[in-house]
Amino acid sequence: MRPVYVAGAAVHPFGKHLGVNAAELGYRAVQELLASTGISPEQVDAGYGGSTYGGSLLAQRVLQRIGVSGPPVYTVENACASGASAVHLGWQAIAGGFADCVIAFGTENLSGFGGGTLPLTTNDVEISQGMVMTAAYAMRAQRYLHDFGATADDLTRVSVKNRGNGALNPRAHFQQAISPEDVEQSRPVADPLRLLHCCPNSDGAAAVLLCSEEFSKQLTTPSIRLRASVVRSGDFHTSYRDMTWPDITARAAKAAYDMAGLKPNDVDLVELHDAFSVAEFLHTEALGIAERGQAYKATARGEFDRDGRVAICPSGGLLSRGHPVGATGVTQICESYWQLTGEAGDLQVPGAEVALTHVTGGGIFGVDNGACSIHILTTT
Amino acid sequence: MRPVYVAGAAVHPFGKHLGVNAAELGYRAVQELLASTGISPEQVDAGYGGSTYGGSLLAQRVLQRIGVSGPPVYTVENACASGASAVHLGWQAIAGGFADCVIAFGTENLSGFGGGTLPLTTNDVEISQGMVMTAAYAMRAQRYLHDFGATADDLTRVSVKNRGNGALNPRAHFQQAISPEDVEQSRPVADPLRLLHCCPNSDGAAAVLLCSEEFSKQLTTPSIRLRASVVRSGDFHTSYRDMTWPDITARAAKAAYDMAGLKPNDVDLVELHDAFSVAEFLHTEALGIAERGQAYKATARGEFDRDGRVAICPSGGLLSRGHPVGATGVTQICESYWQLTGEAGDLQVPGAEVALTHVTGGGIFGVDNGACSIHILTTT
Repeated sequence: MRPVYVAGAAVHPFGKHLGVNAAELGYRAVQELLASTGISPEQVDAGYGGSTYGGSLLAQRVLQRIGVSGPPVYTVENACASGASAVHLGWQAIAGGFADCVIAFGTENLSGFGGGTLPLTTNDVEISQGMVMTAAYAMRAQRYLHDFGATADDLTRVSVKNRGNGALNPRAHFQQAISPEDVEQSRPVADPLRLLHCCPNSDGAAAVLLCSEEFSKQLTTPSIRLRASVVRSGDFHTSYRDMTWPDITARAAKAAYDMAGLKPNDVDLVELHDAFSVAEFLHTEALGIAERGQAYKATARGEFDRDGRVAICPSGGLLSRGHPVGATGVTQICESYWQLTGEAGDLQVPGAEVALTHVTGGGIFGVDNGACSIHILTTT
Repeated sequence: MRPVYVAGAAVHPFGKHLGVNAAELGYRAVQELLASTGISPEQVDAGYGGSTYGGSLLAQRVLQRIGVSGPPVYTVENACASGASAVHLGWQAIAGGFADCVIAFGTENLSGFGGGTLPLTTNDVEISQGMVMTAAYAMRAQRYLHDFGATADDLTRVSVKNRGNGALNPRAHFQQAISPEDVEQSRPVADPLRLLHCCPNSDGAAAVLLCSEEFSKQLTTPSIRLRASVVRSGDFHTSYRDMTWPDITARAAKAAYDMAGLKPNDVDLVELHDAFSVAEFLHTEALGIAERGQAYKATARGEFDRDGRVAICPSGGLLSRGHPVGATGVTQICESYWQLTGEAGDLQVPGAEVALTHVTGGGIFGVDNGACSIHILTTT
């Protein structure tokens, strides 16, 4: 298996881009990627585009406009992990020796839906009975508070931390810090979650350049090692489901640490799937960054602040950046690339050498999530 | 690159399955695949599901029901080449040493649309002006007849041949032979194409088991070498476009022949993308099976009959089998697997040792097709 590098990153700022379709957003991100890396379209061996609602041949539509037309191109859909799955398939193509230079991107426009929860499939027995994502995470939150003695204030602390980070991120949907009072005064959505415990439906896109070691030496941009790239599906069972243990995250994380030859305490920063404030606790614990049931205490102690033990969501997370589903996983890798190359500006985590990115999502009956993807990036 | 084998195939009969969603059709095909190969779900290292209209997490929904939940699973969308692209990504995982046993499938339910042409994206400048697939192929047909001296009777000959083959295929949407008069009397759709020059919108699913050489030795089912697996995107240009030369097919074919170390005249049978009768001429020529502008004459001479020089669409092609877009490419590989293992029954091509499958599709401004995939299977 050949080493794979991230040699460039570009993010189209997240936010509301009503009337700009997903293909256009993706085009802008990929265009910026080519401009910033100096790569010519002819050097690209393959393209992978992730999107959930972008429509047929999304990847082809985006890449042909940038001049990448002719080589293998794939449109990948794995719900919230669509973009990260696109990166993973690109990683596999390089690691397996099938390509030397790959573009992977994710893009989404959710404004077109006009608001509300994302339209999920109606073929699913749980979803058809009302198990939309907000409901699922509210139940998880209730259980977490009950089992481990956390309070709504602990959930609020995640929103305040991540919105504080995002206030410094020019690519984030929300760029304003918020107070605990702001969260408490925001409208209830699904008890105990209030509006500011939930990420917004956003529009946006992101793209990365992946390449082999040899190819990376031709470039003037810095290269960061993509040390682990993992995709997993949810483990199906109809018996009791532990709502405070995202098993899919734990399994994907174990595979990623094994692939990277690293342990949780090697990680300097994590961009994880904080689609709802409670999700940060669940995934921090499943990633092994905090003991089970302890993440909320560590958060209160400031361990996950940008200058803490492990910076969690230093870019602002989904709570600040927003969550254009197909784009989220790629953006996390972009933000991590800039952290490890020292180009993160106001967001910089001091001395960052190991970054982990995590997305999971898609509700399906009998599994915690449909797809989860984890990447680990290292400076060496 | 490790050799990759097809070690099992299953097709859910194509036809109209109104009210049976794509996930259910896919489930039935995959279920049959496991039953017929004797594989247990735990042996499957990864899953790839192709569909265009099946919705989010289609592959995960299908595979979890069969017991494949936990490993990497990907939903792939490449228009008509969705299923074949899923196979290709599975091939890559095995060839690159990332997996030993993979399920790849394709599924689609088009009955839900209620008829008419497939809903294509409205963001495309040509499609929004009326360039639906039927219009595009009618223009190609007009040009082919004009340039090479073929007539509508030649187009009709393709429909009669393929419907004759499909009459013997229990998995085909149409299982009745037709006469030239039937075609001539069918209603005009887009001059010179009549209804029986066009494939139907169908529902169906197909699945294949892909594995490494070592894994294949554990199986009791016969294994066929997947000698070449190629995906290409359309080459973009806005200048004059030669409508009788599907460049994307020619480029994908060259790559496939190179990968297989074979030439066009090594091929015993071809399952190609005869979505409209004229498409068989265009692709037969671009695949190098006939000289440019000569396919219609060779067809008239019977060279492409099931017992001819090269059997083209011996299973009945899209014209008989129907075209549930995501399922088509996988079904072609299933039919070829049965041909090369001598299990094709009434469809058997005598002495078949080398099979080529080809799908292409998806209309995008400035390219002939969005995605094309070619596979070559051999007995040795």
